[in-house]
Amino acid sequence: MNKWVRRCNTGNAEGRQAAGLLPFTVDAVVAGYCRSDFARRLERFDECFEVSASGVTLAERLRRPKERTEAVSRVLAALREEGTITGWRDELYPVTSSFYQEPFFLMERAACPFFGLKAYGVHVCAYVEHGDGSKSMWVARRSKTKATSPSKLDHLVAGGQPHGLYLLENVIKECEEEANVPKDLAETARPAGAVSYEFLVEEGDVNWGGARGLKRDVLFCYDLKLPASFTPSNNDGEVEEFMLWPVERVMATVLETDEFKQNCNLVILDFLVRHGYITPDNCPEYLSLVAGLRTAECS
Amino acid sequence: MNKWVRRCNTGNAEGRQAAGLLPFTVDAVVAGYCRSDFARRLERFDECFEVSASGVTLAERLRRPKERTEAVSRVLAALREEGTITGWRDELYPVTSSFYQEPFFLMERAACPFFGLKAYGVHVCAYVEHGDGSKSMWVARRSKTKATSPSKLDHLVAGGQPHGLYLLENVIKECEEEANVPKDLAETARPAGAVSYEFLVEEGDVNWGGARGLKRDVLFCYDLKLPASFTPSNNDGEVEEFMLWPVERVMATVLETDEFKQNCNLVILDFLVRHGYITPDNCPEYLSLVAGLRTAECS
Repeated sequence: MNKWVRRCNTGNAEGRQAAGLLPFTVDAVVAGYCRSDFARRLERFDECFEVSASGVTLAERLRRPKERTEAVSRVLAALREEGTITGWRDELYPVTSSFYQEPFFLMERAACPFFGLKAYGVHVCAYVEHGDGSKSMWVARRSKTKATSPSKLDHLVAGGQPHGLYLLENVIKECEEEANVPKDLAETARPAGAVSYEFLVEEGDVNWGGARGLKRDVLFCYDLKLPASFTPSNNDGEVEEFMLWPVERVMATVLETDEFKQNCNLVILDFLVRHGYITPDNCPEYLSLVAGLRTAECS
Repeated sequence: MNKWVRRCNTGNAEGRQAAGLLPFTVDAVVAGYCRSDFARRLERFDECFEVSASGVTLAERLRRPKERTEAVSRVLAALREEGTITGWRDELYPVTSSFYQEPFFLMERAACPFFGLKAYGVHVCAYVEHGDGSKSMWVARRSKTKATSPSKLDHLVAGGQPHGLYLLENVIKECEEEANVPKDLAETARPAGAVSYEFLVEEGDVNWGGARGLKRDVLFCYDLKLPASFTPSNNDGEVEEFMLWPVERVMATVLETDEFKQNCNLVILDFLVRHGYITPDNCPEYLSLVAGLRTAECS
């Protein structure tokens, strides 16, 4: 059961050191971690980054968030031009040491893994409760053309958290985009905690779209109880099909297969713990699982 | 909001060192921590304990769990005789490094805080769901004659986990003893996770019945949904009254007062997170709270 905790946490302090990752520092705070080959590519942009053997630092002369965002964005545009950064999203993520802090500045989403920034997302497990108390969960099959984890299983909705939106606003937006859930239903989604992990992305890992670096994620978990009469549908082409599975089948799929997108397993395990499907009497990994779901820096 | 996380976690590595606590070791594994004055009281029982400036070790010649239990029990009886250990319970707790390991041996419950052993408990939040989706929680007022936390508020049921019972069996037993919940209702209690903390007990702290030492607890959290028609009642004299409060009132009481028994605040905060009463959009302490509820060794 803890295999997903282990697989999603290859990037602890030891793993980072073994992979030769260098701290990326802003205002003397470690905001992320860079691979040394990427750090070398930043060397020539010395108006923006100070690169040494011990790490990468945002140039001290850049003080205000806006000038930092602009200066870094010029560097990233050049790195995109030369093909180093791919999968451009035109979406700005905060560079921060903690979700509730004012961000140091903003950075294009596609560049975040190269800097090993902590990223935040909303993940929604949607379920139907039957008359006898049993539950089913909506499972999505990702499109085979998705850049990350093509054809893998997913829960109903997941999305990165951009700067400047409330989490629930993002839940409502993603529910609409990905599953055609109307606003009045989506806004009943209930926040239920968070999972955190830290993952070393190896070269050529198709699950992460080919980006290399360190993924440090905190996912806010939401439960959405849907009426039996509602059926999700997709219009942006990112989902191949939606299936309503008994929670027991979802659980068996998580425990016995690699069918779900890697980090979704953690979100579903958290759901299974909170809803009593995994019990402390039957599972000798219970406490290490419960603790493991928040293994990485959860801030 | 994090005040309860802080207050229940005064016993981390730093706190232990500052308090001069010595590791208590069995089979080369740290099983607990003793105060140095208590360690000195163990010195004269050198057939059972090896005491040095660096710690207390169970005598190596004691190998089998049964002989360990018996030898330690003879020492504890002498310490009880001289008044060092009070509040005898006649209940055996496992001495272990992890809940799912075979225990090294068993020890009288009243002695556990003196050895700073990790202890386990079941805590049940019982709630009623109303037609409009709102919820109320059953709150108990502890008897003023209780040794620990007299007159404080409690959730429906809480109990230490003795050796040799399944957790759900213990939930059913405690529900019956403390609140007259019939078995067929009690067994619908749903495991929903765990909280862990580590707490330095100061001399004369009435909340812990006068025991001094280190409390390291892992509490298994259960949710029990009760029908509106059911009213709990107490027959062992440990509860003064039961009250059904809107969850919002429970939340305000946790956040603004010291009315609840100290560790119950953590269990209720976990309930409030899982049920969406505390939200990540409204609470800048959300992630540190979520992580903080499992701050201490959760194993």
